Amino acid sequence: MKIFEKVVIVGTGLIGGSIALAIKKKKLAGEVWGVSRRRESLVSAKRIGAIDYGSQDMNIAKDADLVILAVPVNTILDMAERISKIVKPRCIICDVGSSKQQIVSRLDKLFDNFVGTHPMAGSEKKGVIHASYGLFAGSVCIITPTRKTNQQAFKRIKDLWKALGAQVVCLDAFLHDKMVSYISHLPHIVVFALMGIIPDKYLKFASGGLKDTTRIAASDSFLWRDIFLSNRRELLKSIKSFENNLTTIKMAVDKGDGRKLVSILKRARKKRDLVK
Amino acid sequence: MKIFEKVVIVGTGLIGGSIALAIKKKKLAGEVWGVSRRRESLVSAKRIGAIDYGSQDMNIAKDADLVILAVPVNTILDMAERISKIVKPRCIICDVGSSKQQIVSRLDKLFDNFVGTHPMAGSEKKGVIHASYGLFAGSVCIITPTRKTNQQAFKRIKDLWKALGAQVVCLDAFLHDKMVSYISHLPHIVVFALMGIIPDKYLKFASGGLKDTTRIAASDSFLWRDIFLSNRRELLKSIKSFENNLTTIKMAVDKGDGRKLVSILKRARKKRDLVK
Repeated sequence: MKIFEKVVIVGTGLIGGSIALAIKKKKLAGEVWGVSRRRESLVSAKRIGAIDYGSQDMNIAKDADLVILAVPVNTILDMAERISKIVKPRCIICDVGSSKQQIVSRLDKLFDNFVGTHPMAGSEKKGVIHASYGLFAGSVCIITPTRKTNQQAFKRIKDLWKALGAQVVCLDAFLHDKMVSYISHLPHIVVFALMGIIPDKYLKFASGGLKDTTRIAASDSFLWRDIFLSNRRELLKSIKSFENNLTTIKMAVDKGDGRKLVSILKRARKKRDLVK
Repeated sequence: MKIFEKVVIVGTGLIGGSIALAIKKKKLAGEVWGVSRRRESLVSAKRIGAIDYGSQDMNIAKDADLVILAVPVNTILDMAERISKIVKPRCIICDVGSSKQQIVSRLDKLFDNFVGTHPMAGSEKKGVIHASYGLFAGSVCIITPTRKTNQQAFKRIKDLWKALGAQVVCLDAFLHDKMVSYISHLPHIVVFALMGIIPDKYLKFASGGLKDTTRIAASDSFLWRDIFLSNRRELLKSIKSFENNLTTIKMAVDKGDGRKLVSILKRARKKRDLVK
């Protein structure tokens, strides 16, 4: 069911490409355009049927009714003003950035119809060749409306994510950033820190446990640098909380306090059981 | 091909049960006995065809030619002396404990034919109902012989693990413990510490990345308490090394040092690519 005429997806990588594929597959738009700096990315996106047309020129967005920004957080912040001078006032702008406060506060000012979103799905893999139209099926997509958010734009973006198979949850941008600092950004920090100190010569002995635990260490370095720096304050708080808990565990190991260890391990296990 | 007459597996849990299943499937023994404190565990082990006979009495090992200790590290240490008074001198004793220095030094003194092993395979799941005869296929099994190790016993245990599908690697018990502190024990500590601080209300938003990263937090609390405490010295060293790396990352985030972050993240990613 068509809900948009011309959709422009800026950034035809894993997320942008997956959104494009799902929009095409479900016929949610009259036409889907991809914009990327990299011509090869547009060629691949077109080859897999994610987009109808590709362009390296942002100006093709001038008659779009939906623009989805699927580039790294800093790139969204960098290009927003230029895009605001290209699109029509009625055009809906949506982003998929992994931290929301900075983006929402800046883009809310620049656009009449901005809606911030964060699909909680992805992969450590990069590029449109890993895109899949089912990436969002059964996932959660967080939408971060503000008092300024246009209600009709909000409703249409909500409908879009539902059509892509996601369960939509609304959160304040601040609460979103606090939450993802715990469930996404801190886990990446911890796994990068862990992976970085394991001597190379031991890695060939890694069991399935280590493989699963460190899978996200293969994630893109620039993407995650941007995410970490855009959510610095909340991330530093969650790192501190993690460090305190690690110190408690370390002291229990050092003292041979088995009872304390069991209580900490049981608590972690109970929480893990809550992860669906 | 039969390589043992009577095999006794002490501890019919995930690992003991999987060894038993594979021995039965490949007809490596005349008969397989299971010993457990828990009658239900023996009933289950027999039902799935892992053992021919079950007993709660260790004395059935008196005419065994192989006894495999597949109980937690501390239980191995606790019961070794009693078993040494039951088995015949020619009986081969093998354990599957996750740390080796304590076990190897004690059991080498108690038995004429002891061989320490550590199959690098497992699961966060517990109990014989999760046992599988293919658990060790394609995995690595570390054997930790000493100068005292009987060469014939060593060869037969090596043949056993090869027959179970594992690639056998020999390591000194000290080097083994140092290695597993990095590739197994520290990752568990870090994941338990991480899981423990994530507020419950956020857990339902967890994406696939967090699920994979924290899967091992569902591991058995008592088993891991024992493992941590039995490898205390090496574990504390690897925790310290992890803490130092985390501090470096935290400071880079705090200072907004993007270049430093990218270099740390790239290093972690390169190491992750070495994990097969």
